[in-house]
Amino acid sequence: MTFSAAVSGASGYAGGEVLRILAGHPGIEIGAVGAHSNAGQRLGELQPHLHSLADRVLVDTTVENLAGHDVVFLALPHGASAAIAAQLPPETVVIDAGADHRLESAEDWDQFYGSAHAGTWPYGLPELIVDGEGARQREQLRGATRIAVPGCYPTSALLALAPGFAAGLLEPEDVVIVAASGTSGAGRAVKPHLLGSEVMGSMAPYGVGGAHRHTPEIEQGLSRAAGERVRISFTPTLAPMPRGILTTATARVAEGVTADRLREAWLSAYAAEQFVTVLPEGTWPATKSVAGSNHAQLQLALDPRAGRVVVTCVIDNLVKGTAGGAVQSVNLALGLPEDTGLNLQGVAP
Amino acid sequence: MTFSAAVSGASGYAGGEVLRILAGHPGIEIGAVGAHSNAGQRLGELQPHLHSLADRVLVDTTVENLAGHDVVFLALPHGASAAIAAQLPPETVVIDAGADHRLESAEDWDQFYGSAHAGTWPYGLPELIVDGEGARQREQLRGATRIAVPGCYPTSALLALAPGFAAGLLEPEDVVIVAASGTSGAGRAVKPHLLGSEVMGSMAPYGVGGAHRHTPEIEQGLSRAAGERVRISFTPTLAPMPRGILTTATARVAEGVTADRLREAWLSAYAAEQFVTVLPEGTWPATKSVAGSNHAQLQLALDPRAGRVVVTCVIDNLVKGTAGGAVQSVNLALGLPEDTGLNLQGVAP
Amino acid sequence: MTFSAAVSGASGYAGGEVLRILAGHPGIEIGAVGAHSNAGQRLGELQPHLHSLADRVLVDTTVENLAGHDVVFLALPHGASAAIAAQLPPETVVIDAGADHRLESAEDWDQFYGSAHAGTWPYGLPELIVDGEGARQREQLRGATRIAVPGCYPTSALLALAPGFAAGLLEPEDVVIVAASGTSGAGRAVKPHLLGSEVMGSMAPYGVGGAHRHTPEIEQGLSRAAGERVRISFTPTLAPMPRGILTTATARVAEGVTADRLREAWLSAYAAEQFVTVLPEGTWPATKSVAGSNHAQLQLALDPRAGRVVVTCVIDNLVKGTAGGAVQSVNLALGLPEDTGLNLQGVAP
Amino acid sequence: MTFSAAVSGASGYAGGEVLRILAGHPGIEIGAVGAHSNAGQRLGELQPHLHSLADRVLVDTTVENLAGHDVVFLALPHGASAAIAAQLPPETVVIDAGADHRLESAEDWDQFYGSAHAGTWPYGLPELIVDGEGARQREQLRGATRIAVPGCYPTSALLALAPGFAAGLLEPEDVVIVAASGTSGAGRAVKPHLLGSEVMGSMAPYGVGGAHRHTPEIEQGLSRAAGERVRISFTPTLAPMPRGILTTATARVAEGVTADRLREAWLSAYAAEQFVTVLPEGTWPATKSVAGSNHAQLQLALDPRAGRVVVTCVIDNLVKGTAGGAVQSVNLALGLPEDTGLNLQGVAP
Repeated sequence: MTFSAAVSGASGYAGGEVLRILAGHPGIEIGAVGAHSNAGQRLGELQPHLHSLADRVLVDTTVENLAGHDVVFLALPHGASAAIAAQLPPETVVIDAGADHRLESAEDWDQFYGSAHAGTWPYGLPELIVDGEGARQREQLRGATRIAVPGCYPTSALLALAPGFAAGLLEPEDVVIVAASGTSGAGRAVKPHLLGSEVMGSMAPYGVGGAHRHTPEIEQGLSRAAGERVRISFTPTLAPMPRGILTTATARVAEGVTADRLREAWLSAYAAEQFVTVLPEGTWPATKSVAGSNHAQLQLALDPRAGRVVVTCVIDNLVKGTAGGAVQSVNLALGLPEDTGLNLQGVAP
Repeated sequence: MTFSAAVSGASGYAGGEVLRILAGHPGIEIGAVGAHSNAGQRLGELQPHLHSLADRVLVDTTVENLAGHDVVFLALPHGASAAIAAQLPPETVVIDAGADHRLESAEDWDQFYGSAHAGTWPYGLPELIVDGEGARQREQLRGATRIAVPGCYPTSALLALAPGFAAGLLEPEDVVIVAASGTSGAGRAVKPHLLGSEVMGSMAPYGVGGAHRHTPEIEQGLSRAAGERVRISFTPTLAPMPRGILTTATARVAEGVTADRLREAWLSAYAAEQFVTVLPEGTWPATKSVAGSNHAQLQLALDPRAGRVVVTCVIDNLVKGTAGGAVQSVNLALGLPEDTGLNLQGVAP
Repeated sequence: MTFSAAVSGASGYAGGEVLRILAGHPGIEIGAVGAHSNAGQRLGELQPHLHSLADRVLVDTTVENLAGHDVVFLALPHGASAAIAAQLPPETVVIDAGADHRLESAEDWDQFYGSAHAGTWPYGLPELIVDGEGARQREQLRGATRIAVPGCYPTSALLALAPGFAAGLLEPEDVVIVAASGTSGAGRAVKPHLLGSEVMGSMAPYGVGGAHRHTPEIEQGLSRAAGERVRISFTPTLAPMPRGILTTATARVAEGVTADRLREAWLSAYAAEQFVTVLPEGTWPATKSVAGSNHAQLQLALDPRAGRVVVTCVIDNLVKGTAGGAVQSVNLALGLPEDTGLNLQGVAP
Repeated sequence: MTFSAAVSGASGYAGGEVLRILAGHPGIEIGAVGAHSNAGQRLGELQPHLHSLADRVLVDTTVENLAGHDVVFLALPHGASAAIAAQLPPETVVIDAGADHRLESAEDWDQFYGSAHAGTWPYGLPELIVDGEGARQREQLRGATRIAVPGCYPTSALLALAPGFAAGLLEPEDVVIVAASGTSGAGRAVKPHLLGSEVMGSMAPYGVGGAHRHTPEIEQGLSRAAGERVRISFTPTLAPMPRGILTTATARVAEGVTADRLREAWLSAYAAEQFVTVLPEGTWPATKSVAGSNHAQLQLALDPRAGRVVVTCVIDNLVKGTAGGAVQSVNLALGLPEDTGLNLQGVAP
């Protein structure tokens, strides 16, 4: 059986990546391909790398065009998805790459987004440990018809630290996360500081001081795993590469926790996960190893001087961090094998 | 009056950068240019960007060749400088870009370098605040004849956090520093993971878990500023750019410390410093702004949710982080104006 | 039916890319994975992006290990493949990513490679027009048991210019080809000029003056298409990117040839080719559009002032230029659909 | 004696680079710093790498603001400079980084720019050989009060080929020039294809088929050197680096011309030029070697198979290709030593 999918936001990076993955997905057929200002253009003009879809013509992102599909991928600006979803049939699988339905706390939403809270949808990070018993988020995604795709930074930060919090090995205060992202994370809108001339050869922070909107989303996931409120200091930085996130996450370990105990916790957390790998000891992850693939690679070390664990995690922000994670969640929603269409190697060098 | 200088390690990146700066220094004349395996070659073959020095021929790094100059720059592998310095006249200004003479603690030296401690020389970071009264390291450099050039990461980390510790605003525990460095920081020796094919488009951590040798050096400087022992978690990462360091440093603020109080501490610390700038509020530093220059640019923010300050600092690892800082210290040693030969703008874009 | 394949040179970039493609090939199963100095290591240590093959252990590149497979991919240094192939059964499909069996002229071989000529194998560029009637190279590949993979530069240069020569529209003298390649084209061996610090932010030519070994290979293919001897000036350059080739090829057009006539020749040459696209007018190719894919994208323009046509062509040097072209040829040799395992979109941005 | 200079277009890349160089120029003091839409802002907000000028406030680009200086640098859109220059005193040195006054042929101007020809000013490329006797362009710049800065591509192409044409060694037909430029050559205006995400890891041609506006400018200079009409095929490409141009220029050599004869012509052409270097044999130029400096580095080779010489030339498009060449010409205009303020090494790696 083949399901049909509509994809909006197809002229952007997230939408393009959803199309790239769906083009190789044996269980989903691409239907309407929607865009805002580019409606009427050939996809080949906007996404010349999507060879097999080059002659598709973009349509307007209207409910009429999106309806009638089994799945609707929304890659729209914040605030736009709720209204569209409300007009789609309840049995349609609607998956939102935007932030609108990620946060449970209306207060957090208000503080960081400053608009009305649209409600919460199941969070599309299947491997996430959601309690001290090791339950996973994927259970909430099976058969779901509304799914919120996690932010790219939260995907890597949560995969990095949730095992330690779920196992009770980490202190909930003084958690520090610093992440470096490729420029595609900033989207395709043209802004002066995203010019190649500015970006190449340069690294720069932004959203410093807890101002980035992914902060409460990371805290929400870690708090759930920990069973208590976790507070983080999160600093994102922009790196001179088109794709990839390297997250460095560090937390104080609880009294008496050893390196072996830590390693065991992470290994057991991901032993059965095909898209999340704890690398062999002595090997550190590089973003290039997961470029184009739906994998996360992690490594951790105990710093005995500082009494902290440092966990590093790499993902492709556009794949595991957005489009790949979305397709993985949709597979669960549709009852397909979770890895359908996602057996992608990394593209390196 | 013009001083003469010998430069060893001239075929490497640090030595090349010392030569680049000295070529424009009105008070210092370049004498012997030494290298190890490349002796006998024209400098133009190895450093084709040093246009005015292209026809200089490299000599062996022997005491005979280095002696007879007012200043000797050593850019040699760890462990090599002490023996050479011992054979040079005591009045010669010997400045060591290696680590041998940076650490005061023989125990730290042993733990991180695993060899006999060569002793401590004055630390070449003039702007560093060394006590709660705001005294600066530069006083120890005036007239010095032996100088240890700081590591590149410590330069940025110490400039980032010392003002807060000296002012008593930060807690000495749970200090976290994550830094991204351009590849020239790893030197010019050919290693597989430093190939362009591997580096471009990729970010990767290394020395995770407190293993990097710059860790005790940063702790030493922060502890001096704080007047108490400071412990850090330090994680370096390799970024896809040839030059530059972006350091993100964060520490818990003491009870009741406000954003204004923090800002005031950093502003007053660097108000009189021409090479260290706290950027106007709302502006975040980018490594490219200091590429090729001896400047550090900083910005800070209080994260009230996390109760931490986040300080970001950019330098050029080869200039302020090595060769520029070295020349600045030598200027002090020789009694020249501190900025002689160092009024370099950044080269951007 | 599934065929088995052995892959040698698996620790290098070409071998790694063959494995990446075969991992998604439904008709070929990966058997022995061979390497030289890295035998005994896990593939995950050397090619951490090949997620599904991480636990494969590399074996020595011996005839014993390679024999017993339906297909043997050789990615070895020049001069090594003939001896191995001679010891493999004649019905085994042996495909050589090296240069040993590309050139028909022993004289050219001697001039550019300086060793004994190993003979000529069918040339693995299926789309290549080989005569004025429009016959294609793929006919020589169906059922072949020995195949020479074209060089990466020749792949792009021949695809760019063969249509014009086959149609009699171009003059055989004063053909000029300038190409920019990503650094993976230089392989994974560590050399000082390939360090990331040297490569990033820099472009440099090499093999200038007709010295590059791909020169006679390009002339051989163009001469065959033209039915007369074609001479080229070929200059390769190294670009600051890991993958991709942009070839700019220009030739004098014959008297009276119009822009429409030129366009028609290229369009008709590739109308039936799924891996070679002449872009719509006004659109110029970018290497990123074919990164990770087996596609070539071309565009051409007549320069009426200069009386020349300029054809630009982009490929991924490791895919269409090496591993993808190899798999495509093997598909033909094995009687599989030519595009099996090769329906890869580009990975952009 | 110190001259005063006004700089317009100071928020762009060319204007910023003029300021970077003037900041270290001992004979010129920076006066008004003008910009269009950014008037009123601190220069530090727009050009944070210009440390010593950070507190300068940008003024409107009006004649009132520019008048009263000895020198006026114009870095404005095409068509804007003539009107301003007409209102400035005739003794003011006005130097135009735009194209308005470069071309002598009104017909060429009309064909490539499509507007009224503003007339011709002395061409600011001092080292250019302008006839078969070896006369240089610098003679026209001494004491000049109106100067047209050459385009960045023409600077490198003319330096590459003029010696051969002036010496009568090259044929005027079938000259082919392919050049790769860093993205700063496209300016600071935000355009989708100049986003970092698009540019990094990608090379792409543009203006193919003789359409680039620098084509007639290159032909003009080469024709003057040759004493006959020279026609070129010129193809520019965009490379994933912020700065630098690598030009590959090739021409058919006249009957009987030897490699030695060619080498001698280029060596003698530039023996007395401090900013143009023919590299030692066997060494090929890299753009990084001239990053940030006013130097051009060249190398050439005879291709005996093709009967052509290939000349490669690297410059920094913003320095020798724009701002450095401009200052060099202004030095000649003011009667200062030609290299005043221009003894800059390259910044590498």
